Amino acid sequence: MKIHNFGAGPCILPQEVFEKAAAAVLNLNNSGLSILEISHRSAAFDEIINNAQNLVKELLGVPEGYKVLFLQGGASLQFSMVPMNYLPQDGKAAYLDTGVWSSKGIKEATLFGEVLTIASSKDKNYSYIPKGFDLPKDVSYFHITTNNTIYGTEIFEDYDVKVPLIADMSSDIFSRKIDVSKYDLIYAGAQKNIGPAGATVVIVKESFLQNKARVVPTMLDYQVHAKNDSLFNTPPVFPIYVSMLNLEWLKEQGGIDAIEKINIKKAELLYQEIERNSLFVGNVEKDSRSRMNITFSAINEDIEAKFLAICKAKGIHGIKGHRLSGGFRASLYNALPLSSVEYLVEAMQDFEKENK
Amino acid sequence: MKIHNFGAGPCILPQEVFEKAAAAVLNLNNSGLSILEISHRSAAFDEIINNAQNLVKELLGVPEGYKVLFLQGGASLQFSMVPMNYLPQDGKAAYLDTGVWSSKGIKEATLFGEVLTIASSKDKNYSYIPKGFDLPKDVSYFHITTNNTIYGTEIFEDYDVKVPLIADMSSDIFSRKIDVSKYDLIYAGAQKNIGPAGATVVIVKESFLQNKARVVPTMLDYQVHAKNDSLFNTPPVFPIYVSMLNLEWLKEQGGIDAIEKINIKKAELLYQEIERNSLFVGNVEKDSRSRMNITFSAINEDIEAKFLAICKAKGIHGIKGHRLSGGFRASLYNALPLSSVEYLVEAMQDFEKENK
Repeated sequence: MKIHNFGAGPCILPQEVFEKAAAAVLNLNNSGLSILEISHRSAAFDEIINNAQNLVKELLGVPEGYKVLFLQGGASLQFSMVPMNYLPQDGKAAYLDTGVWSSKGIKEATLFGEVLTIASSKDKNYSYIPKGFDLPKDVSYFHITTNNTIYGTEIFEDYDVKVPLIADMSSDIFSRKIDVSKYDLIYAGAQKNIGPAGATVVIVKESFLQNKARVVPTMLDYQVHAKNDSLFNTPPVFPIYVSMLNLEWLKEQGGIDAIEKINIKKAELLYQEIERNSLFVGNVEKDSRSRMNITFSAINEDIEAKFLAICKAKGIHGIKGHRLSGGFRASLYNALPLSSVEYLVEAMQDFEKENK
Repeated sequence: MKIHNFGAGPCILPQEVFEKAAAAVLNLNNSGLSILEISHRSAAFDEIINNAQNLVKELLGVPEGYKVLFLQGGASLQFSMVPMNYLPQDGKAAYLDTGVWSSKGIKEATLFGEVLTIASSKDKNYSYIPKGFDLPKDVSYFHITTNNTIYGTEIFEDYDVKVPLIADMSSDIFSRKIDVSKYDLIYAGAQKNIGPAGATVVIVKESFLQNKARVVPTMLDYQVHAKNDSLFNTPPVFPIYVSMLNLEWLKEQGGIDAIEKINIKKAELLYQEIERNSLFVGNVEKDSRSRMNITFSAINEDIEAKFLAICKAKGIHGIKGHRLSGGFRASLYNALPLSSVEYLVEAMQDFEKENK
């Protein structure tokens, strides 16, 4: 049975990426060596990491004056590294609280300085993106989470702010056009639209690197990683290699412009069905809806259990909602084909007919 | 041409591990999903990480009361995490300085408290392991590096000390029997005898976890990772999976006892040839010689260049010494077959005949 992988991450990657990755595990570019046994100081890996960094720059239109880093530890380690590096002990940082991941970032920042939560959608179980907030001018940075994997909301605007802007884009980077020049630092765990788990991409404005607020341990110092071009220590070779393959695939698809069109189409198709179908209801306010993680509920628990069973039987994988949000979550990352969304929509339609 | 991979790391792993890993990239256990697209919260990954942790325990004979963690960031991040967690600001830690990696650990520790370098072999370019040092009783821990990849020395003794013992075993763990009960914390980057780059193994005594010296960021807190069984955040799924495969392979070989016998044989064979061959000379004092990284020099630069060229032509890969040590370094990790060492020795013998 074909599996349609709607999992929230680590998530589906293109089949041809799996095929190329498997081939390189056996023999990298006919070198006689596996990608798993080459040195990170070899010419072969130099080419890989340079390609990966250049693809990030090219696909996102990263302007001059930015560094692209491949680190470890996921967004969770970035939650600490950001304030450790850029929030002075007597300083303040502003955070927008749009869900669990924002809250985790806030928690880590409080260890280093004062944190201003300038707006939160916690009052309605994070079902919307707050608007019209005031941003103080004396903060060291403003931190946002552009896509909220658990609740299914997304910020599509590149905020125009007068302070350094830092964004956790773990779950929507490379899914849509962004204006990188508006950000001082962007970070993203790889395991959605970049590659497999085990790598973390950081895009940082070189001038912002100078804002370091304290002495920090070497491995947690962005300046060190920038100076060493992500090769201060042994990087996660294979996750970076597969990220390169996946970004090459994205380029072949026509890049961000092309994938964004398909992502819009996929999301619209599913949201329309959720609105139309009498057995389901969306969780999120219309203007805050994520294109990557679509959260919805069944009209009662019986319907929920029945549809989950049908999904399992039909090879619709990873559709159970996060326990904090409940119901269903369909993640429509770049590599999930339109045909999988059509398959899910058809299953929802058949289910409605049988349960009316 | 067959490549004999003597690289210092990331390094050779068994061919059957490459084959199984490649198969799982295409289809994990006939699930229809790639190992690269499964959730770290899935039953499939639960089984993988549990297997991996249990194999670490079984192979090393880890006693009750220890936790095995799979983290990220390599030994380099451990250099900071160890003192951040266990060296109080008004406390002292003792370090044995046996090379670059020890020195890096010392450098990070000085950010957190007082560091006593109780002995160093820097005076002779780290060509021996210091002996007969005095260890103060009032230190929070004593830190050693059991194998020095760059210089080719190794500590074979499990020191019997009255303070908590912490060891960086990145490059010799799983190569020989150790008495884990002597250690409070052992850490190792995966990319030698464990698996591919991108995972870090920590073995920590549960009672020692209570010695936390300060509030630390969540992702840098051993207690957090222990409590969450390495699943606080998305772990490096594929590096952990391949580590599991590699430890399964080791078990099939007969475990540590069996591999240690082969490792002794491999190292003796090469050291004997270095001693016998008139064109080469060993870099390290006899009683401090590493079994994992065998460092030696040619009698002059001309001979060095010629032999490097011959190695390249013969598929002897990764044998150039680290720039700090010079000459040659042959890394004889677990997965490097005896036949590769025999092949190298034969090349050295042929080379001697042609250049006498």
